[in-house]
Amino acid sequence: MDIKKYLNDKKEAVDSFLHKYYKEQRRPTLLQEAMLYCLFAGGKRIRPVLAIASYGACGGKSDEIIPYASALEMIHTYSLIHDDLPAMDNDDLRRGKPTSHKVYGEAVAILAGDALLTDAFSLLSDTTFCHTIKETDLMKALHEISIASGSLGMVAGQAQDILSENSIPDKKILQFIHIHKTRALICASVKLGCILAGSKPDKLEAISSYGSGIGLAFQVVDDILNIEGDAKEMGKAAGSDAKINKMTYPSLYGVEKSRQISKNLISDAINSIASFSSEADSLREIALYLLNRRN
Amino acid sequence: MDIKKYLNDKKEAVDSFLHKYYKEQRRPTLLQEAMLYCLFAGGKRIRPVLAIASYGACGGKSDEIIPYASALEMIHTYSLIHDDLPAMDNDDLRRGKPTSHKVYGEAVAILAGDALLTDAFSLLSDTTFCHTIKETDLMKALHEISIASGSLGMVAGQAQDILSENSIPDKKILQFIHIHKTRALICASVKLGCILAGSKPDKLEAISSYGSGIGLAFQVVDDILNIEGDAKEMGKAAGSDAKINKMTYPSLYGVEKSRQISKNLISDAINSIASFSSEADSLREIALYLLNRRN
Repeated sequence: MDIKKYLNDKKEAVDSFLHKYYKEQRRPTLLQEAMLYCLFAGGKRIRPVLAIASYGACGGKSDEIIPYASALEMIHTYSLIHDDLPAMDNDDLRRGKPTSHKVYGEAVAILAGDALLTDAFSLLSDTTFCHTIKETDLMKALHEISIASGSLGMVAGQAQDILSENSIPDKKILQFIHIHKTRALICASVKLGCILAGSKPDKLEAISSYGSGIGLAFQVVDDILNIEGDAKEMGKAAGSDAKINKMTYPSLYGVEKSRQISKNLISDAINSIASFSSEADSLREIALYLLNRRN
Repeated sequence: MDIKKYLNDKKEAVDSFLHKYYKEQRRPTLLQEAMLYCLFAGGKRIRPVLAIASYGACGGKSDEIIPYASALEMIHTYSLIHDDLPAMDNDDLRRGKPTSHKVYGEAVAILAGDALLTDAFSLLSDTTFCHTIKETDLMKALHEISIASGSLGMVAGQAQDILSENSIPDKKILQFIHIHKTRALICASVKLGCILAGSKPDKLEAISSYGSGIGLAFQVVDDILNIEGDAKEMGKAAGSDAKINKMTYPSLYGVEKSRQISKNLISDAINSIASFSSEADSLREIALYLLNRRN
């Protein structure tokens, strides 16, 4: 399969849905502008695409998945806006563009994040998009995503990250941060697709293993790219983690070992869905793409 | 009925649930501390109590409503934490205590708010608390609450409030702010109880009218108390709105007219549930309590 074309097609489907969803100007102008500025700042839509691929791999046939997959991008975008705030990572650039608070001010940036997070749950509970998808499955998927994003998931990871700045590097803490901050939502994304396809527990278990593997590998590769990546391709200066003394896989394990860890995680992820048919090829290809990406 | 006892009993039920819900220390210590500091900073639990009263008024019989009602307090608390931030209203005190960011720093305060908001949706999608409550009703209620809290609800109100600072006083803008910032979630709270009781559309419509009336009246009374209230009872200095030139009902309509507006709203609210049995007496009494409260 042509994975680049697959990724691009699905990205376009998500973009098109999000454009339609926020088309009407029914919000305070600056709030809506800030939300859309961040939502369309050049993200690759990895989480939605993973949800769509997982839905297909589990036998899902329709486009009903698109709205619910798009909600994942809203949650991801909110997390980036809040992470970039002066009180947090204090980043001026994201994907080569000024961050939200640099353009709209801190108050509107905080509110744009709050709005995207809350709206994601409006979308995930909007049953008007359900035709073959069961409402009870949608509820189950929403619950998974909320757990992965909340105080036992992504927020816990970001809090630990902030609270560990300038502390002694520690492999357990690093793993806690990566598992919660990055892996949780990526894993919940593939679970969303699997649940909405009406899958049985054994399939969900296999998909969870796949999601855990690629979710952690994604962050390890990110850490490596932060050292070795091309600033232009990355949209931010290489070496920015090292500059602020951030705990990363390369800083604790070295680059070579980190590369091996990410390879093993991806290979385990692919093995965990070995029993799936060729409909899961997109998931297999995405795993390899995430390992070999340059940005 | 003894409304003070009713309010206190229900508040205790909510407090007790929230304590249990967050009992286990499974989060980064400071994050969990900040979440609980704000959640137990002396709130009256008006939104949860309204949901419980509405559930009873619509024939709901069990304690199943408590967890879902408690989620409303998590959303309300998140909104207070973010509103108090230096980039927003920059408040040092809330209910007489230092605000979250004064105690835990801005980063942890932002994250505590994010976590409470997200966790509220985990709780609202947790079907293990459902016995007589239908999952499809829970989904419908969750959807109402997310709409009331997101970019078409509470966040829009707060954004408009921030963006209207120092602008020319305007009754339409003031109404937009109050309707979105305060009324939306209060109205969604009574709707939650009504929906979870499995009510028919006509009942939900009556309850919505009740919620709209008391929701707006609540904020008008708040505006009046900000001028006339006793600083000790209010937990903040009287006149703080006027000091920062905030648009309020008294500043646009005068105190006497504002008092009349709030009285009319409460009386309309009570009328809209005139056909309800004595099981709705708690809703009637709460409406009068909200009108006559001193803090």
